Amino acid sequence: MTQPFTPTPRTKVQRLPDRGKYDKETVHAILDQGFVCHVGFVVEGQPFVIPTNYARIDEMLYIHGSSASRMLKTLTGGVSVCLTVTHVDGLVLARSAFHHSVNYRSVVALGVATLIEDPAEKMCALEAFTNHVMPGRWNDIRFPNEQELKATSVLALPLKEVSAKVRVGPPKDDAEDYSLPIWAGVLPLHTSSGEPINDPKLLPGLEVPLNVRAYLR
Amino acid sequence: MTQPFTPTPRTKVQRLPDRGKYDKETVHAILDQGFVCHVGFVVEGQPFVIPTNYARIDEMLYIHGSSASRMLKTLTGGVSVCLTVTHVDGLVLARSAFHHSVNYRSVVALGVATLIEDPAEKMCALEAFTNHVMPGRWNDIRFPNEQELKATSVLALPLKEVSAKVRVGPPKDDAEDYSLPIWAGVLPLHTSSGEPINDPKLLPGLEVPLNVRAYLR
Repeated sequence: MTQPFTPTPRTKVQRLPDRGKYDKETVHAILDQGFVCHVGFVVEGQPFVIPTNYARIDEMLYIHGSSASRMLKTLTGGVSVCLTVTHVDGLVLARSAFHHSVNYRSVVALGVATLIEDPAEKMCALEAFTNHVMPGRWNDIRFPNEQELKATSVLALPLKEVSAKVRVGPPKDDAEDYSLPIWAGVLPLHTSSGEPINDPKLLPGLEVPLNVRAYLR
Repeated sequence: MTQPFTPTPRTKVQRLPDRGKYDKETVHAILDQGFVCHVGFVVEGQPFVIPTNYARIDEMLYIHGSSASRMLKTLTGGVSVCLTVTHVDGLVLARSAFHHSVNYRSVVALGVATLIEDPAEKMCALEAFTNHVMPGRWNDIRFPNEQELKATSVLALPLKEVSAKVRVGPPKDDAEDYSLPIWAGVLPLHTSSGEPINDPKLLPGLEVPLNVRAYLR
């Protein structure tokens, strides 16, 4: 087992501290299962929360976007950022309204993101984005050209100030409520994929690749 | 059709403006389909992005939590907040790495949240939270008592400065890439529910209610 992340006053889970997790295995697993994060940043005192793709390579998170976007321009300025990834695993249906809850796993990473200037590291990150969304996809497609690389900003956020929060298991009702004749339990939720939809302009004779057909998240 | 939201410099979609939507029907539909949002707020210059439940009643969004939580204590101070809801509808697999994308629908709402003090409005919001997660659940459960109401803070954010962003449809590749022998298309994603799991302490003879069994999001 590797060294866990050190909780700081900003990342230590305060409410329901049992749900706080700081080990790398938990944090990495949550990050690797998702591919859309919510990035928080501040412009003139107003927080913005924007959904975007991300990828992890070792202890680094990467996000990217058009060099012209407001988010990328803001973050390139070396401002504080919060990157949050959440999986909803189930509805927790208790006997009392108060104890209704959600089973979830989330990671919150704080820090300052830096612009990746090195073309090789940038290309590695773009490969990671693509393969993070669809394993093996990078080997099947046309790589970015120089102009596309230029139009794309890639930012790196080191995994340093990080915590996970996890709720699992059945509802926790008040002792006296267990005798109420109310159904209680968990409704599991998960993401599933439907039938792949061919691009209307697909060349004839091209089959849906195995990684797309067998996609599981 | 009702009056759309007026885009402000903070909510007008700048990149790919065609994806920006400001009509109430679109915004309401996206909000009503989800139940977990990401709330952004700032503490000493650091943005935090925290997943939490929400509900909508007319032109008001509600979030809630323990009165003791950092998020609720911060937001009760009348600070600027950003509430974002995102649905991921599919992976957009293009012929080029550059044009890979995600089909999604998101809503970003900005403003200042206010604490609901009126017990009747608070109870209405709690009913909305419960029924928003599981339609009809409120009628089956024990209502909050005075102590629970006290321990719960409910905040309201008026839907005023709001925009939606929506991507649909197939990949958009560069003209010359359509002749490449690469499969391209969309892999649809959706949330589905599994078999309900009875609480281990469930009273004997209680059946899974129809709304839980027939859950569709």
